[in-house]
Amino acid sequence: MNQINRVAIVGGTHGNEFTGTYLIQKFAEFPDLITRQSFETVTLLANPRAFAATRRYVDKDLNRCFLRQDLQNPTLKSYEELQAKSIQNSLATNGDKADFILDLHSTTSNMGLTIILVNTHPFNLKLAAYLSEINPLVKVYCCSFKSVEENPFVNSLCELGFAIEVGPIPQGVLKAQLFQQTEKLIHGILDYIERFNQGEILATKETLTLYHHLSVVDYPKKQDGTIFGMIHPELQDKDYQALNPGDAMFLTFDNQTIIYQGESTVWPIFINEAAYYEKGIAMAFTKKEQLKIYSSFHVFEPHLS
Amino acid sequence: MNQINRVAIVGGTHGNEFTGTYLIQKFAEFPDLITRQSFETVTLLANPRAFAATRRYVDKDLNRCFLRQDLQNPTLKSYEELQAKSIQNSLATNGDKADFILDLHSTTSNMGLTIILVNTHPFNLKLAAYLSEINPLVKVYCCSFKSVEENPFVNSLCELGFAIEVGPIPQGVLKAQLFQQTEKLIHGILDYIERFNQGEILATKETLTLYHHLSVVDYPKKQDGTIFGMIHPELQDKDYQALNPGDAMFLTFDNQTIIYQGESTVWPIFINEAAYYEKGIAMAFTKKEQLKIYSSFHVFEPHLS
Repeated sequence: MNQINRVAIVGGTHGNEFTGTYLIQKFAEFPDLITRQSFETVTLLANPRAFAATRRYVDKDLNRCFLRQDLQNPTLKSYEELQAKSIQNSLATNGDKADFILDLHSTTSNMGLTIILVNTHPFNLKLAAYLSEINPLVKVYCCSFKSVEENPFVNSLCELGFAIEVGPIPQGVLKAQLFQQTEKLIHGILDYIERFNQGEILATKETLTLYHHLSVVDYPKKQDGTIFGMIHPELQDKDYQALNPGDAMFLTFDNQTIIYQGESTVWPIFINEAAYYEKGIAMAFTKKEQLKIYSSFHVFEPHLS
Repeated sequence: MNQINRVAIVGGTHGNEFTGTYLIQKFAEFPDLITRQSFETVTLLANPRAFAATRRYVDKDLNRCFLRQDLQNPTLKSYEELQAKSIQNSLATNGDKADFILDLHSTTSNMGLTIILVNTHPFNLKLAAYLSEINPLVKVYCCSFKSVEENPFVNSLCELGFAIEVGPIPQGVLKAQLFQQTEKLIHGILDYIERFNQGEILATKETLTLYHHLSVVDYPKKQDGTIFGMIHPELQDKDYQALNPGDAMFLTFDNQTIIYQGESTVWPIFINEAAYYEKGIAMAFTKKEQLKIYSSFHVFEPHLS
């Protein structure tokens, strides 16, 4: 495959992340914005019931429902499990399969415009490198899985594509500036795909700064599971900044500082994401890496299978 | 009544406003923090089910369930309606009635530490003036009702006291700095009451800057009720700042600016509060006023009934 024929933009996978949902609605009203000559663009509001209720999900986090075995399991029938199967049917069946899926999210963490890669396909890497080159707000986080079967995200449905995580935005809120920045990023992606399809050359840097997922960290908790501390003021909003051994991580309710006791520097992200309290995640640690990617100013070779 | 015997600190009236809930939990663990010699302090987690679900409410906004007629209506039996009756029973029955109720809230709006007065009782005004004098982050918003019967808030249960609205904080999130500032404000209130009970003199300015509620403004909406614009970037986070005729208010999804077309300056608050989308409130307009309050450096006269 040397051509991308169908791009799907998915919004509202989480019902209280408004940026994606309202961008989808905008694109429905002004379809010219996402129309390009060489491919079809479709939009999908992934979780309409959760959006109507202004909640992340109704029964179960939709963006954890795309494990291959769960999609094939006929006994799973919660709202989001059925919705995942329906989305798989729309976007990943042979007839009108999407060649590229962009899944729009927002976060309460100060993550700017984050691209979440779920694999290191050369096309995704080059596109991410291009986007981070034209916009310094763009960061690239890689959360890859051993196999596609282990990937529970919407983006498991398609090798090409990624999620965008925009923040900081409270749940259930629109912020105009980030709305516009997200839209601009989407236009950049569609334009890149258009030029790729037309065989045009898009130069990118030879290296890409990648934040590679390492592990997640929970809040300080008592034996009964209740939280007794919060993100330290010195760490709040410091996503993508180096956390060194001895740096402050948490502040307990009785004003004791809990420091980072690891042996090497990490780069935390998803710091204080509202939806992750229930998942026991105060932040995710990443490792900042410079990845050499194939680049050419003369030939843009698609590495598509 | 010249003595305040019982102070109630209420948290978690809205289940996804964590600051108050976790402060209540902290005070339960360290009761000395809220113990004062001359009065009893009790704490109350107002909406435990909504807190467990990290939602504002389960069936109905609890802080709209305190209309006198609703509390007396035996047919109202939703979770929050029953909870309101139970809270009335705890805090407003003759035996162990609270003399002062402090209700802790948080907001996604940039409202700093806002005191929400529901009446202009001289004690409340003087305490508010004192708090705004010792901390410039404190603002005083007055949303008074014609009669206590028309007041649906927790604070309708008691003439003395008010709500604190702290922000900006996303729903379902703890922010350490605002947590500490809120706690400090609570200590200031308890210390003030203690000194009041002991007949000590607390000097305050002669005038109090009060933001008096005028009206609420909805988002730009289509005929079918869907939003087609968001808070303008120039207005975002500008709570308590003057909005003049011709100033930008909203930005439509297709990038048109909607200006404020009123005839006189207003001071908007609750700008882009997440919980108010469903209520059709994009912001509340207030009028900034300088209120002369009785003040003396020599005699502190309680105006309590």
